[in-house]
Amino acid sequence: MTTTVNGPMRNGVDTTTLFATLDAVKAAPEAAKFQFRASNEWISGTHSRGEIHDFFGVGEDRTHTRTFTFDADHPAVMVGQDNGPTPVEYVLHALAACLTAGLANIAAARGIRLTEVRSAVTGDIDLNGILGLNSEVRNGFQGIAVRFTVSGDASPEQLRALVEQSRARSAVYDVLVNRVPVTVDVTTA
Amino acid sequence: MTTTVNGPMRNGVDTTTLFATLDAVKAAPEAAKFQFRASNEWISGTHSRGEIHDFFGVGEDRTHTRTFTFDADHPAVMVGQDNGPTPVEYVLHALAACLTAGLANIAAARGIRLTEVRSAVTGDIDLNGILGLNSEVRNGFQGIAVRFTVSGDASPEQLRALVEQSRARSAVYDVLVNRVPVTVDVTTA
Repeated sequence: MTTTVNGPMRNGVDTTTLFATLDAVKAAPEAAKFQFRASNEWISGTHSRGEIHDFFGVGEDRTHTRTFTFDADHPAVMVGQDNGPTPVEYVLHALAACLTAGLANIAAARGIRLTEVRSAVTGDIDLNGILGLNSEVRNGFQGIAVRFTVSGDASPEQLRALVEQSRARSAVYDVLVNRVPVTVDVTTA
Repeated sequence: MTTTVNGPMRNGVDTTTLFATLDAVKAAPEAAKFQFRASNEWISGTHSRGEIHDFFGVGEDRTHTRTFTFDADHPAVMVGQDNGPTPVEYVLHALAACLTAGLANIAAARGIRLTEVRSAVTGDIDLNGILGLNSEVRNGFQGIAVRFTVSGDASPEQLRALVEQSRARSAVYDVLVNRVPVTVDVTTA
């Protein structure tokens, strides 16, 4: 394994493993069936703590190398204690991270060396919806805007095409623009 | 301000402020127009770092009491270094946190004391989609399931009704099940 730009490592992506993984999944498509999981415990008011640790993939239950723990809350202006970001801010973070990871992989696969990728995401929301004060206002974001700044050893057109391909293959973008079925069950004790 | 169950604090929710906020927004609906923001910087491979700090609400730009920073990555089995959860796991975390915050607020408004709220969220995804190996497989989750355990001083029916009302007023649930417009712009440098 080398770390030169023209070797198997590119943009921090192990392209040998990336292409080998693609070949492996082509040969055994079931390996690509994953289940991701998060758990959450209410602490007080709008403050809760989430944990992300285990998942299923490539045929078996697996764990991350450590347990990731994240607090969520509302800021004071939303009657919370600001112990963490709001849940909707985590969604914006997820979208930026997903598009960025895809972009780096796609650039590596196309032999483009990236030098900088930054993004800023904004989401407009009218809280008259979740407050139940206006039935014509939706609960969630009315729109989300992502602004990328990308630098690398390629033409502006090639760099823009990386973002476009990442958008076309983004899991988080997909669930936001195309909807996903969600079931909610309750056990009382 | 007291902290007894029958006083203005209930479930850690300052119900006096909650109801005062509702009245204030009824009188000035523009106050409820918020914009949330996240920024992201690519580090290497699928590893990126997101920051959540400022937002707009109640007529002006505001900041959280501190800057929240979160790494995202893919695990080794997805050709990453596992420096953080995957972006899609942040979405599951956001959904649980949103439903939980709403549940605590709604319980407080209804005079129900909660003793425990836990949830587990799972999302099934077939990576043949994002890998571009099967055009019939979507990129994102095929389905998400949330399982709540709720305990408190109320009947099982009342506790289940809290979850149902939270679902009906959840910003994250809304964007997942009803879609949201997302624009992606690129600046190259």
